[in-house]
Amino acid sequence: MLFTDNTFEKFEKDLVSKFIKEEIPFILIHNQSDIISLDEAKADELRDRYKSDLLEFSCSMLNDEDQERAVAELTSLIVKNINSSAILEKGMFEDLVVAGDLVVLVCPIDSEAPEGRLILPQVNAIRDLLDRNCIPVVVQPSELKSFLERSSILPKLVVTDSQAFDKVSEIVPKEIPLTGFSVILARCKGDFESYLKGTPAIDTLKNGDRVLVLESCSHHSTCDDIGRVKLPRLLKKRTGVNLEFDVVAGLDEIPMSIDNYSIVIQCGGCMITHRQLHNRLKPAITAGIPVSNYGMSLAYCMGIYERAVKIFISK
Amino acid sequence: MLFTDNTFEKFEKDLVSKFIKEEIPFILIHNQSDIISLDEAKADELRDRYKSDLLEFSCSMLNDEDQERAVAELTSLIVKNINSSAILEKGMFEDLVVAGDLVVLVCPIDSEAPEGRLILPQVNAIRDLLDRNCIPVVVQPSELKSFLERSSILPKLVVTDSQAFDKVSEIVPKEIPLTGFSVILARCKGDFESYLKGTPAIDTLKNGDRVLVLESCSHHSTCDDIGRVKLPRLLKKRTGVNLEFDVVAGLDEIPMSIDNYSIVIQCGGCMITHRQLHNRLKPAITAGIPVSNYGMSLAYCMGIYERAVKIFISK
Repeated sequence: MLFTDNTFEKFEKDLVSKFIKEEIPFILIHNQSDIISLDEAKADELRDRYKSDLLEFSCSMLNDEDQERAVAELTSLIVKNINSSAILEKGMFEDLVVAGDLVVLVCPIDSEAPEGRLILPQVNAIRDLLDRNCIPVVVQPSELKSFLERSSILPKLVVTDSQAFDKVSEIVPKEIPLTGFSVILARCKGDFESYLKGTPAIDTLKNGDRVLVLESCSHHSTCDDIGRVKLPRLLKKRTGVNLEFDVVAGLDEIPMSIDNYSIVIQCGGCMITHRQLHNRLKPAITAGIPVSNYGMSLAYCMGIYERAVKIFISK
Repeated sequence: MLFTDNTFEKFEKDLVSKFIKEEIPFILIHNQSDIISLDEAKADELRDRYKSDLLEFSCSMLNDEDQERAVAELTSLIVKNINSSAILEKGMFEDLVVAGDLVVLVCPIDSEAPEGRLILPQVNAIRDLLDRNCIPVVVQPSELKSFLERSSILPKLVVTDSQAFDKVSEIVPKEIPLTGFSVILARCKGDFESYLKGTPAIDTLKNGDRVLVLESCSHHSTCDDIGRVKLPRLLKKRTGVNLEFDVVAGLDEIPMSIDNYSIVIQCGGCMITHRQLHNRLKPAITAGIPVSNYGMSLAYCMGIYERAVKIFISK
């Protein structure tokens, strides 16, 4: 939060109030201090009122050495105040695996997959398993059956892209736990208890009910098709009733007051922080509206919800 | 290449000549066409001289529909003219595997690994294997031995981070082919034949010889430590002579004339295009100076070069 000339009036105060309300970390920086230096009484008042770090800063008239020191100080304050990031706070496989476990990750490669790469939750999963000294085996759905038949090592767990839930569920023997990337994400960065409570409300949806689909990607999203096409189709098939859908992307405004919706379904949120996801869902949860997420809703509609959440419920 | 007001003089001509010389794809865009529209005679002359696409463009005074059409046209011309990208032109595992093959990827997770993710060549490798309906098994070096002992499926190939070459080479049975990510990258985007010819020149280095290390990352690089510390240390150990090293990052200028160097060692170049890599090495190759790359040099110094390049030579 930059300010200059010791000016901290209504605009600055309103902005900081918003940061505090939304739980967004901030630091105060008095810039252009080479022109007007920070008033010490003002500084004490701000530090006292906002319990925030406050830095005197200037880009001009600093020699190289001073500039390096100023930038280092600024950087360290930023790092200190970021207490959350898009990286998961809770590891994806925490409490689910032990070192040496083999975990099969089913990653269909379709037209939505980024060129030459994998989507973020898949990469996050591989990395988290390596961090735990586990052995991720990555397969397309077409190779899954053959691998399971040929492998002498029983997987501790199979994780699939939620879109392949039904196909994969038929292939993986019942004694091997199965879940989805999106369900794992829901556990480590969503409001998992609320999702568990909210997802079965799919079966209570009535004709004409309105469904709010929240897609958190700010950029062009590969989940587009899930939220706009697959999820609506499966929900209509499962419930057998006509539903109205509002799909809201990024941080766009929700078109109606939240109590017009009978259920809110949130994407995995791989690109956003735990706090952003939490704040996005808060109005619905506060209003007592059932909430779910993409993967859990897909699993529910495909009739394999119990299996997909089993390993988390027994914890 | 933007120009306005039908002005295509020395500056513009020089720039386009440079593009042509460096084999950089370009299109010509006459901007601000709402102020001065493109002269048709001029347009024909430019199209004829440069054999290039030429687009008349303006950001102002376009209604929504025209703007959408203009942006679509611009986008399609850009896409049409990009004939190269950081994505590999030749797939990493082309000619090396067939569908159903199990390939073990050894990915040590150390302090250099990006938080929560994997480095790009590892992700590229997993994706390329999935595209070929193969089964990538990802392991840390500590799990490799146990996995190979327990697995009933013989890997078609083991690929390791070059830094773990010696350790991994001891663990992988001699009958299983072994290579490095960096060697694979060298084959698909480096000047592989030149590397094969140049790498053994390591053994001809003499006291006081100068080594040029080229690191292509433009951002803070995780290969920093390899180019600046590990490679110099291993080269000195292997050759037993004193060598002088110049490490050049990104597109920084090379401190001396190229014929002052006895060998040039290039990084894998995961972040740059084939063309950029090729152009960077051209002066050395033209001057007849031996060239190699990080992974192949590391393998050579560790005494496992023959094994690491074997699968490529038999092709």
